[in-house]
Amino acid sequence: MTTSPPLQFREDLTLPARLAASAADRGAGAQLRTEQFLSWLAERRQAHHFIVERIPLSALEDWSFAPDTRNLGHHSGRFFSVEGLRVRTSQGPVREWYQPIIQQPEVGILGILAKEFDGVLHFLMQAKMEPGNPNLLQLSPTVQATRSNYSKVHRGADVKYIDYFTQPRQGSVLADVLQSEHGSWFYRKFNRNMLVRTDDEVPVDDDFCWLTLGQLGELLGLDNVVNMDARTVLACLPVASAQTRALHSDTELLSWFTGERARREVRTELIPLRAAVGWDRDTWAISHRAGRYFRVVAAAVEATNREVTGWTQPLFEPVAEGTTAFLTRRFDGVPHVLVHARAEGGFLDTVELGPTLQYTPENYAHLDAADHPAYAELLLDLDPSRIRYEAVHSEEGGRFLNATSRCLFIDAQDIGPDVPPGYRWVTPGQLNSLTRHGHYVNVQARTLLSCLNTGAVVL
Amino acid sequence: MTTSPPLQFREDLTLPARLAASAADRGAGAQLRTEQFLSWLAERRQAHHFIVERIPLSALEDWSFAPDTRNLGHHSGRFFSVEGLRVRTSQGPVREWYQPIIQQPEVGILGILAKEFDGVLHFLMQAKMEPGNPNLLQLSPTVQATRSNYSKVHRGADVKYIDYFTQPRQGSVLADVLQSEHGSWFYRKFNRNMLVRTDDEVPVDDDFCWLTLGQLGELLGLDNVVNMDARTVLACLPVASAQTRALHSDTELLSWFTGERARREVRTELIPLRAAVGWDRDTWAISHRAGRYFRVVAAAVEATNREVTGWTQPLFEPVAEGTTAFLTRRFDGVPHVLVHARAEGGFLDTVELGPTLQYTPENYAHLDAADHPAYAELLLDLDPSRIRYEAVHSEEGGRFLNATSRCLFIDAQDIGPDVPPGYRWVTPGQLNSLTRHGHYVNVQARTLLSCLNTGAVVL
Repeated sequence: MTTSPPLQFREDLTLPARLAASAADRGAGAQLRTEQFLSWLAERRQAHHFIVERIPLSALEDWSFAPDTRNLGHHSGRFFSVEGLRVRTSQGPVREWYQPIIQQPEVGILGILAKEFDGVLHFLMQAKMEPGNPNLLQLSPTVQATRSNYSKVHRGADVKYIDYFTQPRQGSVLADVLQSEHGSWFYRKFNRNMLVRTDDEVPVDDDFCWLTLGQLGELLGLDNVVNMDARTVLACLPVASAQTRALHSDTELLSWFTGERARREVRTELIPLRAAVGWDRDTWAISHRAGRYFRVVAAAVEATNREVTGWTQPLFEPVAEGTTAFLTRRFDGVPHVLVHARAEGGFLDTVELGPTLQYTPENYAHLDAADHPAYAELLLDLDPSRIRYEAVHSEEGGRFLNATSRCLFIDAQDIGPDVPPGYRWVTPGQLNSLTRHGHYVNVQARTLLSCLNTGAVVL
Repeated sequence: MTTSPPLQFREDLTLPARLAASAADRGAGAQLRTEQFLSWLAERRQAHHFIVERIPLSALEDWSFAPDTRNLGHHSGRFFSVEGLRVRTSQGPVREWYQPIIQQPEVGILGILAKEFDGVLHFLMQAKMEPGNPNLLQLSPTVQATRSNYSKVHRGADVKYIDYFTQPRQGSVLADVLQSEHGSWFYRKFNRNMLVRTDDEVPVDDDFCWLTLGQLGELLGLDNVVNMDARTVLACLPVASAQTRALHSDTELLSWFTGERARREVRTELIPLRAAVGWDRDTWAISHRAGRYFRVVAAAVEATNREVTGWTQPLFEPVAEGTTAFLTRRFDGVPHVLVHARAEGGFLDTVELGPTLQYTPENYAHLDAADHPAYAELLLDLDPSRIRYEAVHSEEGGRFLNATSRCLFIDAQDIGPDVPPGYRWVTPGQLNSLTRHGHYVNVQARTLLSCLNTGAVVL
């Protein structure tokens, strides 16, 4: 018989309390008080030189349209490509459509490093420029890297702190899960969402700072400060829920979700971009003929703090701002949010749980009111007293240009327990526990969940 | 404010004890003592008239090979088709291959109905004929139905007890999860594995009987009695684990699995069957040129207790018996099994956890010993005293002909905690908790897990 190594407890029962303590610490981080943060961010912005310019598609360097498919790809064959997608579905007002979609098979790492200072967990965040961000510089995870980044396909600088995530020490991982990205714009894209703890002395680079969860919650109350990559990792934090009861048991919730997945037929097919019916290419963009949805455009970037100093790339630019909102209410004193089981063309597994509303009104203007999403009318004449949280956040600035969403929690105490097919009331604790696994909670719902995990909104 | 309905506890904390009590009841079910079961099954076999005959592929009725693709499909466009698959992978001795594969996009229901008799949970099992089973009749779930079955595409009889699963009452669902099927033979096939409890008076049809989990465990000790569909549902039972410790914490286990998924590139592509290089069609079969893997053959079936009384269909017939085995040992007194993160061409999400060995020696005979699976050499000269469990079980008899596997638990107390990449020691409780979600545990590992859940083997 060999000697046994020491066993681990299956669950770290102390972690939720430590996360709660960090979320409670809203003002005074070990490194930076919250009110100092914005001047630090402004200073980081000034320390670097960034210019992003819109360019004609033909001015893309190292990118080109393939003669046969007209797919847009990089000469190296890496990074990503823009291809065509055909979607057929068994439900909803539109049963078939074509669209451009981003194909990026590589799994990236979105990793946040955590460390205790004075007994409180802090998280190492990076001020990072992304060309599509409305304000260029936002707060991102410690590491935000595609495999091309850290395997140096583009001959750039090393990715800082990457070893904590590619070679984590035993017992250091607090969360590690493959989560989907935007199912309407990415074809089956996943990133590895990681949270890793260290006791090391960690040298802090100029563009990095340690913040508590509570400080991150404060910043999530501001527009366009915490980027999408940071938000999705924060959504996967294994926070505790004090609530052992809910409108539906966990098994019933999973059963309902299984039924939603089983009853929805979504057939997707990658096609040549030239075969994407209804989409046209001109000098500046590939656009939908009716002006809806998004455009594929090109940008030239100059930067001094990125892995490389200048490049051009395609970006997806939505035609209008989206709205993502959770309706929320209490049942028997227990807070719930209303999730919607959404089929999106780019999901690997048919359906994921999204917010109650995930919606760009402009894209529905041509449809009958009956074909608008459920609960959309609530937004038309929204009593400000019902708004529990509101901020504008932007989607991934490395792929999306000015893709902002108005994020809301809306009080809906007047809406009953019985909701339309495809909708379910769940507790924040139930939603959070599903983020431990992939394929359940979509990226828009994860943004809203990050606000709950960090205390940006308390229901 | 609307009135709140009563909240549910998120978890039913009484269920594990009730399942344990049912597993402890090994001899005396409410309806049938275990020793009476085999004569009941023999009687059911005699009560029906079954003939399964091998026929030439050209004798298939309502099935044909498409002129362009040579895919084999049913005239209705339903049921399933046999198409071609091209697989490219970044690891392993064989990096690219072609094969026929079953394409069946419908999600079926595998459902077992449970009810308490004298305070002990019993499970309603069906003696069901499947043409591919070595002994035709095996014990199957209460309901085993494709959507074609219960939506009556083939004009058959109603599926008995189906309403318990398509319209479950609140609080009645004990488990409900989409699980993958054989990733080497099915393209992204999922079935809904359901366990539903009732207090109804349930009329028991001639071909059905109520058995305790312990009785099912006794029967899992016999060859070819409990069918694959029953085994996979039994694997999803939410049994309790007394063990709160393991060699790796749950978070570390999930992190390792996430890493396995992220590092493996498996690219699969459905292709026309005529483009499946290395496979030839003759009168009786589509076969691999080297005689390895499996054949696609045809059978004519006559039956009197099925939804229809006679039909013909294609079946996949493996060329040899497989071996699926868990190595098992204790660390610090806590039982563990050794899982293997396997990439199979038909998996939707790259990798799932399989047994330590899932292996048909004949398919590796042409490869160097170094390219045989890890631990395969253990089987060559296996000391019988190391065998903790052994039985031959057959795979889904509706699609696979004489597809049997020798299922084993092998004592491996001499193997240390450090194992090759792609392998990990996990506790049965950890493996069981992963079956609450899809995409984690493959169907071969679920067969072995069903033996643990029912007490067929106690580690």
